Amino acid sequence: MIEDKNPQRTPLGSLGEFGLINHLTQSFKITQNTTVKGIGDDAAIIKANDGNHIVVTTDLLVEGVHFDLSYMPLKHLGYKAVMVNLSDVYAMNAEATQITVSIAVSNRFPLEALEELYAGIETAAEIYNVDLIGGDTTSSTTGLLISVTAIGTAKPELIVKRDGAKPNDLLVVTGDLGGAYLGLQVLEREKQVYKVNPNSQPDLEQYNYIIERQLKPEARKDIVKLLADLDVKPTAMIDISDGLSSEIIHLCKQSKVGCDIYENKIPLDPQVISTSEEFNMDSTTIALNGGEDYELLMTISQSDFPKIKGNPNLTVIGYIKEYYAGMHLITRAEESIPITAQGWNSISD
Amino acid sequence: MIEDKNPQRTPLGSLGEFGLINHLTQSFKITQNTTVKGIGDDAAIIKANDGNHIVVTTDLLVEGVHFDLSYMPLKHLGYKAVMVNLSDVYAMNAEATQITVSIAVSNRFPLEALEELYAGIETAAEIYNVDLIGGDTTSSTTGLLISVTAIGTAKPELIVKRDGAKPNDLLVVTGDLGGAYLGLQVLEREKQVYKVNPNSQPDLEQYNYIIERQLKPEARKDIVKLLADLDVKPTAMIDISDGLSSEIIHLCKQSKVGCDIYENKIPLDPQVISTSEEFNMDSTTIALNGGEDYELLMTISQSDFPKIKGNPNLTVIGYIKEYYAGMHLITRAEESIPITAQGWNSISD
Repeated sequence: MIEDKNPQRTPLGSLGEFGLINHLTQSFKITQNTTVKGIGDDAAIIKANDGNHIVVTTDLLVEGVHFDLSYMPLKHLGYKAVMVNLSDVYAMNAEATQITVSIAVSNRFPLEALEELYAGIETAAEIYNVDLIGGDTTSSTTGLLISVTAIGTAKPELIVKRDGAKPNDLLVVTGDLGGAYLGLQVLEREKQVYKVNPNSQPDLEQYNYIIERQLKPEARKDIVKLLADLDVKPTAMIDISDGLSSEIIHLCKQSKVGCDIYENKIPLDPQVISTSEEFNMDSTTIALNGGEDYELLMTISQSDFPKIKGNPNLTVIGYIKEYYAGMHLITRAEESIPITAQGWNSISD
Repeated sequence: MIEDKNPQRTPLGSLGEFGLINHLTQSFKITQNTTVKGIGDDAAIIKANDGNHIVVTTDLLVEGVHFDLSYMPLKHLGYKAVMVNLSDVYAMNAEATQITVSIAVSNRFPLEALEELYAGIETAAEIYNVDLIGGDTTSSTTGLLISVTAIGTAKPELIVKRDGAKPNDLLVVTGDLGGAYLGLQVLEREKQVYKVNPNSQPDLEQYNYIIERQLKPEARKDIVKLLADLDVKPTAMIDISDGLSSEIIHLCKQSKVGCDIYENKIPLDPQVISTSEEFNMDSTTIALNGGEDYELLMTISQSDFPKIKGNPNLTVIGYIKEYYAGMHLITRAEESIPITAQGWNSISD
């Protein structure tokens, strides 16, 4: 599906390891005043802003497990690998400042492929204003693997963990859910069609939003700023990488609380609704278990409700209850169903 | 060669991802006062000590590229993966404080194998006093991959980079060189013998030091303390992961200087000399290009020489010259040979 528009194929072995890193990162710029020394020494050096804490998070993306290069362009993959990590920083209510990127890559990738990957990383770094300060490049026996570590900073009193939710707090979610999972279903279907008929010209216009949610997710840096502008500090926050139900369970377990969420409050894009129908899937199930949306789930005190009321970025989907009340979904039929973690693997079972 | 002494094989799939991380890390302790929050949230939280800078380094180890499980026990591998990264922190003259460890692992590894790996990581964390604060665990299509990020801290004025060497500075190396490479040669030879005769009982007693250098290297945390005790701040420092000549070239290029090093000054263990002879290899070539010794190479001002004179941990092997003089090895025959980077791959060519 992705045509190779660049016929040039430079073998990776033609540059040494250091030549390769230099080549791939030479155009990257350092913009954070806390970056004292980036790539080029045994370690990078960071200056901590006075009194701020530092947050650190890391994620691995593995070809054949987390991405399929037959429909994921390498530039998008580089961008997404950064987003996945920045999302965790923003979920701490922190500002992302630096990243390291390590890749293991087999010889089937020419230099030009890695240039595409790093172009996506660079675009993400520029838009989200983070510095690439280190990494490692090595060969792999098969496929491509990307390991990103993201570093951020925040005033200690502003950091939001998962364990602070209190009974009566409101459960709030950003954006809308389920799009990334359905985008993946559309791409998988087109891959099968392409296998049968390589000349097919798919018209994916009607799926553009959900495909973009899958291929080019955005981390919610804007929400950290919005919360500061609204003068709202959530009592707990977590990013939605594995699906709403899984993240609600994490948040409630660590906060030792229960919750009710309302099916009719879960924010869904019209493309999610129409595509769910087309695939004969239940849109609520997809929103609960789809994953990869990289939205934020937070709890806020009821006294902060007037500050967020009507904000198009924030949707109240339920509220926190005492631990012994358990975690439940209140359906449109007003049934109360226990929330269980399925994760996206189990949706299609 | 490594017998499976533990017949129990628990499939990894029987724990979820979170169950797996919890299981593997439950016995790890937090000992650094700068670790505010370790594993268990979207990101770890670190407190910067007043006025200190933070250093960050990351390395990937890939099965079949960096290690061979037929002679590398998993516990040693976990230990070594930490050492490789701590060595980079110490090369900045910094104190290592935290690590993150991510692994990608195929289903052929049972839970018990990962327990061994994490036992080695835990031993390293305890001995070197670093906290495991995060990581990611995912499946891989083949083999095992370990990505470690190490974090350290130092007063800004104590940090030593690669670019501060000045003409007339002394080139100083810690410990001895070439052992790790020769240990690998012995292990590779025994692997071939074992393939032919699985009942062979190798006597590796005479190689114990060099095998330990390969399987259980130690990062030179003690040198950071020693330099502080001696009141010596190197003008430049780098860790010797790829062989002495490669690291000298990095240091000289970044400092824009040349150097002379003396063949007869390069510190070699007697086992390195005897095993080199046995393998019909030149011990100087091995010390220059062998790699994986994880010693430190530094330059110090001549005025500091009285402070280090006679210290058994520190050997003066040459001195820094002007850039235009180039980089040379002065052989025992008093010939001057330009230093070139070969790296360990090329030794056996």
